[in-house]
This record gives sequence, structure tokens and C-alpha cells, in this order.
Amino acid sequence: MQNVRITIQYDGSDYHGWQMQRDHRTIQGELTRAVSLLDGRDVTVHGAGRTDAGVHAEGQVASFQLERSIAPMELRDALNGNLDRDIRVFDVEFVDENFHARLSARRKTYRYRVWTGDVVIPFVRRYVCHHRGQLNTAEMIRAAEALTGQHDFTAFTVSSSEVRSHVRNIEMIRIEEETSGLAIVVIADGFLRYMVRTIAGTLIDIGRGHREANEMAAILESRDRGRAGPCAPAAGLTLMRVDY
Amino acid sequence: MQNVRITIQYDGSDYHGWQMQRDHRTIQGELTRAVSLLDGRDVTVHGAGRTDAGVHAEGQVASFQLERSIAPMELRDALNGNLDRDIRVFDVEFVDENFHARLSARRKTYRYRVWTGDVVIPFVRRYVCHHRGQLNTAEMIRAAEALTGQHDFTAFTVSSSEVRSHVRNIEMIRIEEETSGLAIVVIADGFLRYMVRTIAGTLIDIGRGHREANEMAAILESRDRGRAGPCAPAAGLTLMRVDY
Repeated sequence: MQNVRITIQYDGSDYHGWQMQRDHRTIQGELTRAVSLLDGRDVTVHGAGRTDAGVHAEGQVASFQLERSIAPMELRDALNGNLDRDIRVFDVEFVDENFHARLSARRKTYRYRVWTGDVVIPFVRRYVCHHRGQLNTAEMIRAAEALTGQHDFTAFTVSSSEVRSHVRNIEMIRIEEETSGLAIVVIADGFLRYMVRTIAGTLIDIGRGHREANEMAAILESRDRGRAGPCAPAAGLTLMRVDY
Repeated sequence: MQNVRITIQYDGSDYHGWQMQRDHRTIQGELTRAVSLLDGRDVTVHGAGRTDAGVHAEGQVASFQLERSIAPMELRDALNGNLDRDIRVFDVEFVDENFHARLSARRKTYRYRVWTGDVVIPFVRRYVCHHRGQLNTAEMIRAAEALTGQHDFTAFTVSSSEVRSHVRNIEMIRIEEETSGLAIVVIADGFLRYMVRTIAGTLIDIGRGHREANEMAAILESRDRGRAGPCAPAAGLTLMRVDY
């Protein structure tokens, strides 16, 4: 048995998210099918981050056990041959048996793209969220600082969240300028469900002047989901990389 | 009556090209519907270039006559409100009654994108043509020089072409490096059907070493469609701009 680590990109627009579901097309489902077909048996594919429906990835990582003997680049091409063009395996590495895409992950980087121009160009329409009009970047940066560090992020996840601890460590939140908009980049040791999108939705509210930057610390401390802004649309979000 | 000039972008992947057809979704059909709806009557929309099915535009120009009195930016927003997100009106100008998007056009620029890397990233998959492996750019540039200037381009169009003259003037063909590939940029006073794609197909053949750069002059002079390379896939082609 060979433990395999793959790096993948996907346009999540036409998928019901990462996690396998019986009647829906999902990223994990497609990868599981492609790997199982190749290995002639049912293989379980583990992903670093369970991206939601409509969320994209430029650097998702997955791992699985393979019985068949095949060179890494041939494996990459064989998997891509079994996948639609909106999912691509970019890199294949044979790794130590202890490596696990989710359990071994130390840090993830997400990017949330906001288009502020009047008209969204058709070529990026699937990858941005549209908020017409300038955002006050300085206020957004000020608000983001309140979130940096180790905190309980209960205010920024779903109330039905099933994970035991809501404490995560945000290493950095950065606002980057883009053509006709900006991107909110969040790097953390882990993320709760809807966490980046709820942070993005709250920061956009602040950037539009609908809330004060000062409120961010109080929202965080409240641990009350009702205090934070809306969950921003999935299309704007991309999982950029996973560090181990 | 106000003569109106609009600049539009579109992702042509899901359209049967520019020209209106009874049972198919086309760019001209969608624009005609949007403008007619707004003006409360049947309006004819003229386009600068009749792009084929699957071809994209970053700077297509169209013109039409409008009865209704409305400011340019309101007109832009109203039209976009009546269109799907894969067609966007970017600019609206009120122009002299003599302006006609097709008849007044002096020069068009097309860009053909070739991805040469092993794996096409999902986010550009609709906008490039994939030819795995390096292309010999120097030979492609040498061959392209034979096409520059005023020539009869019969060898690079369909034999059923209905236009009277096949003489066009190519002002420039440029090869530009792109991430994991290159783009063939062609600027001319006008284009025959499939002309850019057949030039691209022939240049790609030369770049791959399947033909000699020297052959290009003889292909052009032969006026024989059978001598040129294949018509490259529509997805790689984008109409970049129209000059008046």
C-alpha cells in the first residue's frame, strides 16, 4: 500500500461542496470515483478542508491509500482522465504512511474576492462576490485586527456546529487590492463552518459603512452568531493552500 | 431616434455564436431581446464581428437605434438587468447617426490563447486551447511574418465563404508569452470566417514541429484551404477590440 498526497484545483460552481453525498455531485465523490476506478476497489479519499457548495480551490490537498503500482505523474494523468475539466489534480506525491490530509494539516489560507466595480466581467463572474461601490479598506483592516490571534469564533459559525471547540488561531487577515475590487485573505490553523464567509460578510458591512470597525471586538466576545454580519456568498471564496 | 454604440464582453461558451438563430441562444439574439424589451419595439442590433459559437469577446462593439430617452449609464444598467451574467454591456455612448458597428469598423484585434502546460487550471478551461508541451515560438514568429500585409487569405477560410473578396490586410501578428502558454494576437482590417482559428491551427502545427515555418508563404499563395493547418478550437479565441 502506498500513501498518496494530491494537490487539486477546482471550480466549485457546479458541485455540492467537498463532502460525498448520495445523490449529488461533490468533489470528494468525484475523486473517490476516479481513484477507486483506477485501483479496482473502494478507496477513501480524505480532504484537508471540507469546502461548501460553490466554494473553489486553488490548492486543496487530499490523501488516500493506493494498492496499484504506478508512477506519480502517470497517476496524475490517469486521475485527470477520469475527472471533468473543472477538477484537476496538479501534483501527486508519495508520502509517509503517517500523512493524513486533514489530520496533518497545520495551516490553511482562504481568499475571499469582492468585485466593487459597476460591471462584473463575465470571465470572473463565478469567482467573485459583487458589491458595487467603494469599500473603506482602512476600516476593514482596522476591524480585521480584532480577529487576529487565538479566539473563540462562535459568533462566526453556524449555531448547529458540531465541533467541540470553537477556538481557532487566525495568524493573519490581509486585505489585498485587485482589479476592480479587493480580496480578504485569512490564514489560520483551522476554520469553523462558514467562518471565512461570515468574517467576509461582516468586514464588507464595515467597508460599506453599515457598521463601525470598533464593533468587531464586541461581536467576537459576544460569541453570538446574531451579532455578526451575513454569511457572504460561496462564489467569492477559494481555498488557496494548505500547509503541513 | 438616438444612435447608440455599446461595448460588450461575453463568455461565448454557452452561446451558438453572435448571429441570431431561431432556436438557439446567440449573443445578437440576447442583445436584441434586451434592447427591444427596453424600447417596446423590435430593434435591430448590429455587431462589429460575427463571432462563431464558443468564441468570446472582451471588446465587441454593437450599435442600434433607440427611441426611448434614457441616460447612457442607466441604459447600460437596464440592459445588463435584462441579460445573463455571461454577457455584460460595459460602455454605452450616444453617437452620430452615421455610426454603424460593422460598416464603420476599421480594425479588429483577436487573441488566440494556447495552454502548453501539463494541466489546464480549471478557472481558464473555457478560454484556452490545450496543446501539451513546448511550442517553438521563434519558428511561429518567423511563419507569421509571411502572413503580415495585404494578401488573399482564401487558404485560411472556409471554401463555402460567401464574401466577394478574400483580400485582407493583417497589420500585425504577435506571439505573447502567458502563464503556462502563449497567445497569438492578430490585428487586421477585417477577417474571413475561421481565419484567425485557421492561422492559429497552422502556427501551432509549426510550433510543434509538424510543419516548417517556410511553408507558410506557399500555403498563403496556394489559396488552397487544404494546404493550411486545422481550424483551432473556438474556446481559445477572444475578440479583444474594434477600432473605428
